[in-house]
Amino acid sequence: MGVPMLFLSDNAASVHPAVWDALQSADAPDSPYDGDAASAALDERFSDLFERPCAVLWVATGTAANCLALASMVQPHGAVVCHEEAHIEMDEGGAPGFYLHGAKLILAQGEGAKLSPDAIRAAIDPIRDDVHQVQPHAVSITQASEYGCCYRPEEIAAIASLARQRGLALHVDGARFANAVAFLGCTPGDAVGPADALSFGFIKNGGMSAEAIVFFDPALADVARYRRKRAGHLQSKGRFLAAQLHAMIEDDVWLDNARHANAAAQEIARACGERLMHPVEANELFVRCTAAERDTLRARGFGFYDWGADAARFVTAWNTRDEDARALAQAVAAL
Amino acid sequence: MGVPMLFLSDNAASVHPAVWDALQSADAPDSPYDGDAASAALDERFSDLFERPCAVLWVATGTAANCLALASMVQPHGAVVCHEEAHIEMDEGGAPGFYLHGAKLILAQGEGAKLSPDAIRAAIDPIRDDVHQVQPHAVSITQASEYGCCYRPEEIAAIASLARQRGLALHVDGARFANAVAFLGCTPGDAVGPADALSFGFIKNGGMSAEAIVFFDPALADVARYRRKRAGHLQSKGRFLAAQLHAMIEDDVWLDNARHANAAAQEIARACGERLMHPVEANELFVRCTAAERDTLRARGFGFYDWGADAARFVTAWNTRDEDARALAQAVAAL
Amino acid sequence: MGVPMLFLSDNAASVHPAVWDALQSADAPDSPYDGDAASAALDERFSDLFERPCAVLWVATGTAANCLALASMVQPHGAVVCHEEAHIEMDEGGAPGFYLHGAKLILAQGEGAKLSPDAIRAAIDPIRDDVHQVQPHAVSITQASEYGCCYRPEEIAAIASLARQRGLALHVDGARFANAVAFLGCTPGDAVGPADALSFGFIKNGGMSAEAIVFFDPALADVARYRRKRAGHLQSKGRFLAAQLHAMIEDDVWLDNARHANAAAQEIARACGERLMHPVEANELFVRCTAAERDTLRARGFGFYDWGADAARFVTAWNTRDEDARALAQAVAAL
Amino acid sequence: MGVPMLFLSDNAASVHPAVWDALQSADAPDSPYDGDAASAALDERFSDLFERPCAVLWVATGTAANCLALASMVQPHGAVVCHEEAHIEMDEGGAPGFYLHGAKLILAQGEGAKLSPDAIRAAIDPIRDDVHQVQPHAVSITQASEYGCCYRPEEIAAIASLARQRGLALHVDGARFANAVAFLGCTPGDAVGPADALSFGFIKNGGMSAEAIVFFDPALADVARYRRKRAGHLQSKGRFLAAQLHAMIEDDVWLDNARHANAAAQEIARACGERLMHPVEANELFVRCTAAERDTLRARGFGFYDWGADAARFVTAWNTRDEDARALAQAVAAL
Repeated sequence: MGVPMLFLSDNAASVHPAVWDALQSADAPDSPYDGDAASAALDERFSDLFERPCAVLWVATGTAANCLALASMVQPHGAVVCHEEAHIEMDEGGAPGFYLHGAKLILAQGEGAKLSPDAIRAAIDPIRDDVHQVQPHAVSITQASEYGCCYRPEEIAAIASLARQRGLALHVDGARFANAVAFLGCTPGDAVGPADALSFGFIKNGGMSAEAIVFFDPALADVARYRRKRAGHLQSKGRFLAAQLHAMIEDDVWLDNARHANAAAQEIARACGERLMHPVEANELFVRCTAAERDTLRARGFGFYDWGADAARFVTAWNTRDEDARALAQAVAAL
Repeated sequence: MGVPMLFLSDNAASVHPAVWDALQSADAPDSPYDGDAASAALDERFSDLFERPCAVLWVATGTAANCLALASMVQPHGAVVCHEEAHIEMDEGGAPGFYLHGAKLILAQGEGAKLSPDAIRAAIDPIRDDVHQVQPHAVSITQASEYGCCYRPEEIAAIASLARQRGLALHVDGARFANAVAFLGCTPGDAVGPADALSFGFIKNGGMSAEAIVFFDPALADVARYRRKRAGHLQSKGRFLAAQLHAMIEDDVWLDNARHANAAAQEIARACGERLMHPVEANELFVRCTAAERDTLRARGFGFYDWGADAARFVTAWNTRDEDARALAQAVAAL
Repeated sequence: MGVPMLFLSDNAASVHPAVWDALQSADAPDSPYDGDAASAALDERFSDLFERPCAVLWVATGTAANCLALASMVQPHGAVVCHEEAHIEMDEGGAPGFYLHGAKLILAQGEGAKLSPDAIRAAIDPIRDDVHQVQPHAVSITQASEYGCCYRPEEIAAIASLARQRGLALHVDGARFANAVAFLGCTPGDAVGPADALSFGFIKNGGMSAEAIVFFDPALADVARYRRKRAGHLQSKGRFLAAQLHAMIEDDVWLDNARHANAAAQEIARACGERLMHPVEANELFVRCTAAERDTLRARGFGFYDWGADAARFVTAWNTRDEDARALAQAVAAL
Repeated sequence: MGVPMLFLSDNAASVHPAVWDALQSADAPDSPYDGDAASAALDERFSDLFERPCAVLWVATGTAANCLALASMVQPHGAVVCHEEAHIEMDEGGAPGFYLHGAKLILAQGEGAKLSPDAIRAAIDPIRDDVHQVQPHAVSITQASEYGCCYRPEEIAAIASLARQRGLALHVDGARFANAVAFLGCTPGDAVGPADALSFGFIKNGGMSAEAIVFFDPALADVARYRRKRAGHLQSKGRFLAAQLHAMIEDDVWLDNARHANAAAQEIARACGERLMHPVEANELFVRCTAAERDTLRARGFGFYDWGADAARFVTAWNTRDEDARALAQAVAAL
């Protein structure tokens, strides 16, 4: 079989050739930190993409992107409403508590790791409006969600409307935002809706080490610039991060990569039928199967994570080979 | 003149070819975060280099390296003794306050931005041993210092001895540690002395985006691993950072690069004579000169920063061209 | 009716005469902060009471007591396991996030707001032992619980045994610890079990402004002394707080007061029958009743809080008049 | 001699009879926390006193007052400019680092522990306006200063004007504000100037355990209310703190007490002549004298602190007996 057929995660996939080219072109010295030409051009590049004014900061991880964005919106005595399965709650090692100086996460529920206005209301309406209980300052949703489900533009609009009504800022964790846009077939602007900030992920989608924090409210970016430095995330050779972002946006590499990963996921999904725990709308599949079935798949060379005792998670990537996706689909169908 | 003759800083210099090679070799997928083979091999690699057991974590910036190291040694209600010109005090945007949860920096003085046991005692002896005054928990020194001066092994030993006596941990900020080792002509182990942790810089010396935190006390590394994730510094494609560190250590690239930069600095230093504000022991020169003289130099194509009203700072790098160093030396001599 | 018959809370009740006497006796100047004779005598006083060595700090609120105790046990990157209805989660305005520098609360479930080893395991066993998920460092239980239920000595022993096994510290929030001891009829030492620290409440039980943090591990107290000052909780006329604690312990005032409050609660409880939502084991009653029934009670002069839409909470205090308790019992019975 | 003649500090002095009366009158139950009538009446009471709208919060210590005030003005990535001898720098156990989440203190110099516009400019003008250096967000001055010197209204106006120009908030630490007003003979409003908040001290001046944070900008008070609870400083029987403040303001007790203490200080000052290190403008005297002279004074029954090797600090209080002040004056004169 040679190379194992990896469906473990997109987070360690190889780097896209266009990114490599851009990195090498960026080697010529330029001003340090974010004073280089490529960093300076990011605002305009993303403003074009989102069709509204953006202020954009690069950082090296999604965790830093999420937490710097939220730290610009939430005071230390406040809270962020998020899904109980949200990455910021489950997988960031307590980074929100660190970056937000002890602010709280208020956990809400919802199918497919998606929030709804009702779910948000159920979480915050019982909070007494007094100093004894921590008050929400922001909502954070994940597009596509931790279970690979996408918010439709009207769903985000409804959440944003509730947020505005309650005086809450809105953050979108877009670790797999490209996959959501590819699935929805809408503009990036429609896929993020009237959010205040977006953590726009590129690393899972072919980048090496650069994510973008896209602020739709420039005042928030001004705070985040100080906080990024203070968090040790202002790299001195920042031009190498900016270059990655430009390379991914140029010629729609980001979108093509996501479409490829999504298509591979769809191919596998068709073979899963009733086994699917969530609709497959991005590049993740959560598939019911027994331990014995997982052994069978692993024996055939497929790499993936268990998802609890009775399921497996498969993740496709920008570089998943068609034949590997097909092989996995057949193997699942044959179980 | 074509390419400007840059002596602005080493922090934005190009990336060394060996690092580029290593990055590309690292492209094949491996486990995410620090689960890859290259990350796992760092402890052994650095233990060999320092001739004692080390636990090593990669991070993307010197600020993160310094602050994660210090956060493993200092409780939030404690303090770090450092020079009043230390990078952690002057140029890290308050990162120590963030990472150490409000712990304080106690500022001491000393020639060439170097501390001495006397200077440390002068800073901490007046502190009453009660809960009203913040107590020191650690000392941080910079090797080479912010003014390009190197601690001799016996100087570090004396500081370490005082630190041990007072129950203080010892951290070494080695953003330009390679330059110090190259200057001192001693082993890396002797250049860091009996410190508890070293921020070992590679980015200024030919790396792209990887610094090493070298813990000589493994218990501190265990804490730092959690704190690194919590700070959003655990990159998912960590193999690209580990690869840079291996490439720099392999075949003494780090030392050769530093020797080159130091030699260029010495060439210029010889031309500066009485103008030098500090002995030149690494790759930085602080040179008295008037605004008019600086204009002259800039007109001749040299790039550098003003250092206050009456001086200039020149920094050489691993890739400073011999002819550029020579040209600057001549130009300064001709002033 | 004259004075309203208050069952709103014990937290605003009058101050016990013995406390008044002690306050006035403390007026003569003594050393500031905790340097006075009364503060210095606390360790011995509480060591006698708990029959093991204690280090005791006074503070002005239960929130400060809980959070200073926990801050001595939990690192900023760790977590505290507590009940989802715990005071530290619900009613301290995010103080744990502040004092613990962003550490997390891991919420567990259980009848009567009490934890059990099984409930703790259910909360922490799913946590992967890696840096991506926040690891528990301590358990906090409330004696008597937020629903007025008491842990039996063997229940605490079982929790402590699990905590020790997992390397977790154990904290007891004893805002109503006196009521628990009065109910259990055991020694204070048995009612707190092998905990590392106890927030021993006196304010709800006849004090004015002093709670005790009782450390059974003196090393924790050493940290807490610095943290108390750092939190602005080291009062300069600390002798007035120490005096309150001595007055409450002297002649078992604390226990007599709690017995009185508990007896009043029992009198009312007997009239509530099936209406009780939780067993009445301290001085709080959670009583099912309709809005109309609550109106009836209020019209008759009883003060209390609604508990959701279908219940009321009644709290008795050290100074609840027998006739008021009797009147409420009759009124409830007559509903 | 009986009672020792204490000039150690005003911070542990006895409680004024008017405060005792008020405490006892406050014993009747009222709403908990700050929901009682006395707490609710504070805004109006202090608005009358300062002749402009105030929002007032009680807290138990000056450290809490200073830090809650500053935390409402300064973001975690910012800094406070203060004198290098300021109480917040020297004697609050790092509380500003805790409450301000790692924000920095920028130390300035000046005679008598007083700041001036020039001193502030000297401290902040060298700060580069970039993210690498921590930017000032507020100025804090102490009225009367840590060396017992008072700012004249025009001095505060000049500082406030600079602060406004630079976008900095202005905080006044008024631990001994009453002594300053008594010395200046101006209105309280003139003695605080156009500050944003004042920590108005009462404990050193005859109170037991209540200080006032006076916000002249109500928006800051709204933040501080949440932060006070979050810091564990919202006492449940808050009426006892409010009562102390009312008692001190009523009938100018605060001013009479301060006048008495100041007069005692003046009596002693007249005997000190050239020995005085700072002008005596409040109730503290810093007096040059040898160790032998201090022994002599102590042998005669006077209690006081050494101030370094060659001086003594004497502090008078609201209850310093005239004969004691006279005796000390004579004893100093006789040295």
